[in-house]
Amino acid sequence: MLWALWLEYDGAGFHGWQRQGGQLTVQAVLEAALSRLHAGRPVAVTVAGRTDAGVHAAGQVALAPLPEGLDARRVRDALNFHMKPHAVAVVAAVPAPAGWNPRFSARQRFYLYRILNRRARPALDLGRVWHVPVPLDVAAMQEGAALLLGRHDFTSFRASACQAKSPMKTLDRLDVVRAGEEIHVYAEARSFLHHQVRNMVGTLRLVGDGSWPPSRVAAALSARDRAAAGPTAPAEGLCLRHVAYDPPLFPSAAGL
Amino acid sequence: MLWALWLEYDGAGFHGWQRQGGQLTVQAVLEAALSRLHAGRPVAVTVAGRTDAGVHAAGQVALAPLPEGLDARRVRDALNFHMKPHAVAVVAAVPAPAGWNPRFSARQRFYLYRILNRRARPALDLGRVWHVPVPLDVAAMQEGAALLLGRHDFTSFRASACQAKSPMKTLDRLDVVRAGEEIHVYAEARSFLHHQVRNMVGTLRLVGDGSWPPSRVAAALSARDRAAAGPTAPAEGLCLRHVAYDPPLFPSAAGL
Repeated sequence: MLWALWLEYDGAGFHGWQRQGGQLTVQAVLEAALSRLHAGRPVAVTVAGRTDAGVHAAGQVALAPLPEGLDARRVRDALNFHMKPHAVAVVAAVPAPAGWNPRFSARQRFYLYRILNRRARPALDLGRVWHVPVPLDVAAMQEGAALLLGRHDFTSFRASACQAKSPMKTLDRLDVVRAGEEIHVYAEARSFLHHQVRNMVGTLRLVGDGSWPPSRVAAALSARDRAAAGPTAPAEGLCLRHVAYDPPLFPSAAGL
Repeated sequence: MLWALWLEYDGAGFHGWQRQGGQLTVQAVLEAALSRLHAGRPVAVTVAGRTDAGVHAAGQVALAPLPEGLDARRVRDALNFHMKPHAVAVVAAVPAPAGWNPRFSARQRFYLYRILNRRARPALDLGRVWHVPVPLDVAAMQEGAALLLGRHDFTSFRASACQAKSPMKTLDRLDVVRAGEEIHVYAEARSFLHHQVRNMVGTLRLVGDGSWPPSRVAAALSARDRAAAGPTAPAEGLCLRHVAYDPPLFPSAAGL
């Protein structure tokens, strides 16, 4: 019996999503909990997006086998019990539709990148935001962001370790919004290259502090060269907010 | 030279505000940093509100002596440097007006209490929210909250350790708002009794889960007996958001 799981986690305590050796990863914690429900047998899960170390998720989605005879509440509560005390929770569980795959069936992925834009270092949101102590020009960043929208070869914003076959991606939203002392960057696409969001944010930061005119973002994109774009923004500001499927998988009040 | 400091801290790592023995408290960390700037001499600060262990602050305000010849940026940056790596930061500093006192000059205090109202335990906001896994009726909670507004004897919502001379307080706002999977309780008054916000929230939770009709909140208030009200909500959901003074102390963009 295959289930779709809506997962939330604080990336700070994990070496990313993917199981690797004896490291504490989200996948390792989830699979260990699943194994407990399968009489100790090893269990493998697949996931919508393999987040890097330090990246958070409010809406990660995974596919996992569970024993017969459990209802949605039992699946959720049993996994949450066995994943204690790690900072990962199953918010909701639904039976997986036939042929559904969390990665390949995804219609859209929604990321939020949070920048704390003030002199004082973060105290309340340490590990959740990228601290940029110099003033950033949000309007200029938004102007640069708009130049990345649409279907492009995103080689300039792609990690060298990226395993995607093609660097062509369609970016549907990249908005830069001031929220008090924070700047929020909203990124939406069907899929992203490895580090694409963090590389776009690291580049927009150069626009924000005046090092680059906004137009240079277009030049960086058309160069198709990683060295032409800005540095990779730190993992801690990034959160996978939501993965959308058609039809929607989880009812919005699924948590209750 | 006396300065007003706007402080932010994550209460999880501290045994509250107040200095006590060798415990890690916010006051102890701040006073140790101030002492470094006073050639190691002991320094004492006063504060707007002595928060309990686990309670967070985004807008705490303190009064502290600093050596002559520093400007606002130097005060903020030097204190933040010396308070590393503790989860407390000076967001801004301004010279204290003559005769000003962070506690007695306060015109209004603003608290936010966050409840995570879903079955799954918190992962991303662990230590920041009170996890209530049973569904709560926000409209009933709001109806109960409205019965506490105005000037009353709040003995029923007062900690036994409370040192206030009078139990009379004027509650100006107590709003219960759903925010996705969370319920936010906004509380505003010139001042509060010890544990007053947490005791009001613990009582409203009984209304929310149907244990109490909203009208029983009024009965609890008029009983003037701590045993007549509900239990104390946990510290971790509470945050001191802001303390207001006339005229306002800190410019809103003070952080930059």
